[in-house]
Amino acid sequence: MIASVATYFDHNGTTVIDPRVLGAMLPYLSNQYGNATSRHVYGRASRQAIDRAREQVADAVGAHPTQVVFTGSGTESNNLAITGIANSNQAAAISISAIEHPCVTRPALAMQQRGHRLNMIAVNEHGKLDMDALKTRLDMPTVLVSVMLANNETGVIQNIAEIAEITRKHGALMHTDAVQALGKIKVDFSDLNVHAMTLSSHKINGPQGAGALILDKRVDIQPILLGGGQEKGLRSGTENVAAIVGFGAACELVSRELLQRTATLRQMRDQLETGIRELGAVVFGASTERLPNTSFFAFPGIEGETLVMALDRKGYAVASGSACSSDSTEPSHVLLAMGVEPDLARGAVRVSLGSGNSMEQINGFLMTLKNELTRLRQLTAIAV
Amino acid sequence: MIASVATYFDHNGTTVIDPRVLGAMLPYLSNQYGNATSRHVYGRASRQAIDRAREQVADAVGAHPTQVVFTGSGTESNNLAITGIANSNQAAAISISAIEHPCVTRPALAMQQRGHRLNMIAVNEHGKLDMDALKTRLDMPTVLVSVMLANNETGVIQNIAEIAEITRKHGALMHTDAVQALGKIKVDFSDLNVHAMTLSSHKINGPQGAGALILDKRVDIQPILLGGGQEKGLRSGTENVAAIVGFGAACELVSRELLQRTATLRQMRDQLETGIRELGAVVFGASTERLPNTSFFAFPGIEGETLVMALDRKGYAVASGSACSSDSTEPSHVLLAMGVEPDLARGAVRVSLGSGNSMEQINGFLMTLKNELTRLRQLTAIAV
Repeated sequence: MIASVATYFDHNGTTVIDPRVLGAMLPYLSNQYGNATSRHVYGRASRQAIDRAREQVADAVGAHPTQVVFTGSGTESNNLAITGIANSNQAAAISISAIEHPCVTRPALAMQQRGHRLNMIAVNEHGKLDMDALKTRLDMPTVLVSVMLANNETGVIQNIAEIAEITRKHGALMHTDAVQALGKIKVDFSDLNVHAMTLSSHKINGPQGAGALILDKRVDIQPILLGGGQEKGLRSGTENVAAIVGFGAACELVSRELLQRTATLRQMRDQLETGIRELGAVVFGASTERLPNTSFFAFPGIEGETLVMALDRKGYAVASGSACSSDSTEPSHVLLAMGVEPDLARGAVRVSLGSGNSMEQINGFLMTLKNELTRLRQLTAIAV
Repeated sequence: MIASVATYFDHNGTTVIDPRVLGAMLPYLSNQYGNATSRHVYGRASRQAIDRAREQVADAVGAHPTQVVFTGSGTESNNLAITGIANSNQAAAISISAIEHPCVTRPALAMQQRGHRLNMIAVNEHGKLDMDALKTRLDMPTVLVSVMLANNETGVIQNIAEIAEITRKHGALMHTDAVQALGKIKVDFSDLNVHAMTLSSHKINGPQGAGALILDKRVDIQPILLGGGQEKGLRSGTENVAAIVGFGAACELVSRELLQRTATLRQMRDQLETGIRELGAVVFGASTERLPNTSFFAFPGIEGETLVMALDRKGYAVASGSACSSDSTEPSHVLLAMGVEPDLARGAVRVSLGSGNSMEQINGFLMTLKNELTRLRQLTAIAV
């Protein structure tokens, strides 16, 4: 077993399970183990636990429990939304932003191969959707618009309600990937006015292995996973009861503790950014509305991957670019879409804060960062 | 919290997590929580844990670790095999047995809608595949044959190696759903000679939320879930590290303890069947090779659902028909395919034994069953 003693600054990648969440899960990992489809006492107990979690998830995002479709992950929810809606409709346009996560972009590309037209809507230098470009694209018959609520790399928040209003006016359906927003800002399904919304458990101190698609029931959508007909036929497969229970418990904590969490995160993030700017950092998306926990920055001339490795050796776990995509040395597609020069984009490092982080950790990080930058700049100077 | 004090006889539905498996998982549900894609110390620890589990799963089924594709469930693995292989090939025939689980049948039906031809291969009165029917069907260009190794309801075991040999001779690919076989009989990927094989964690005292497709790497297959490119692009989505670790640990226990488990299960099952036959039961598939833990039977004139509910009230958790499919009062499609009269099929009750069951429980069950049958037969007599 590897003891992880490093300071964890990668909460947009994944989060620790809250001990209270684990406490809620443990009975379902031990003596409470029925298949939720079974009609005996074990099965009924599992079904009740899922029903309770469905309420908790719905409550956290202002939805009705019947609108919650449990899936195995945010990735699966996004695939279900894009593929399921596209396959339920005649070929038409799908519009997504240029900064979506690959689990939106790639299903959309697959739908393009099946005859749909794919429009990638540009963002401006702050990472915000180009509304004029969206409107222009919506002039063609469109089945679906998908724009993420908050970006996983920059933390930049989109005006989803406004985008949804425009989309609805043009007769299209609106989906938003709210995976990174949940637990960091208020997320309300009704206020956002979308038809479908993706959530993930492991980004909010819940377990991996659970996600949800919040879905307006009037939307025609085809399932991806076929079989036993669980989740009203929209997601077959034996329910992962413990993970769903944990997801529900994590959502309840979000409902109760969001305001307090947000304030603490913002304070630490601001302290961090004051410090890194003094060391010469460029902070991406800083002049627009962002998640309170995320800082995406670069030091000109310093390669992001190199800095991440150096910080790792010094006991700080941070990310370079998106932690959710597989190995790649390409600069972040999000930054390129924002017009950031590739050389600067290659320097990008992401600090994403979460529960358990402290101001002491921020200050320690800044000291270490200063030393590492000095060392790396000296190496670069020698190399030149 | 609901305390489950009933005797659990539904191990083909789901199983309790072995305490040793939970012990292996717990670090990954608490302090060891990195995203396996992340390159920092937390991420690398998760990656190592997944690599180790991949070896454990491979070892349990005589495969190579590189042949293991982790998914979220057996359902997902079956969908991936059927849909992924069909979509990678030009429209041709797909042949499946008439007794497959819905998570094979329904993806196959979906592929039929996309232009493939679907052949349902009959089984005989013992539930064994009709080899002549298979050969006849294979005269048409066929992309894939999928036949389950052991049936979830009857426990009847197919001669997969022989079916695979015939299939290969005709140039088609062979998939088997080995979800119910793993942990109950020896399962060897090489011996079975298939191209793809589905496994599930929660049927072998591992956690829900993990499955695998064991895959010959030469097979062309398209992923269902697209995104970050995990599992070499075959299954995107943040890996459920704890569930994968638990699946690996459960597989290691299977490798070590299978022979002992099998002997104990068979002894209890035989005791059970001696008893129920004395009470007038018809046991389905009894005269052919079956899993050692499964007994599927009916008492003529007694409705299965009624008996299951009566036994539930008396503290015995058993299943009527397949526990994996959603609510349905239709008689089992497996029994109908075996030529069982619908009236008798409606009486079907499944007892599936597992770890933790004892001979005392079998004897207690037989006594309770005798009393309940007497009561139900009196009620029926009065009603008539």
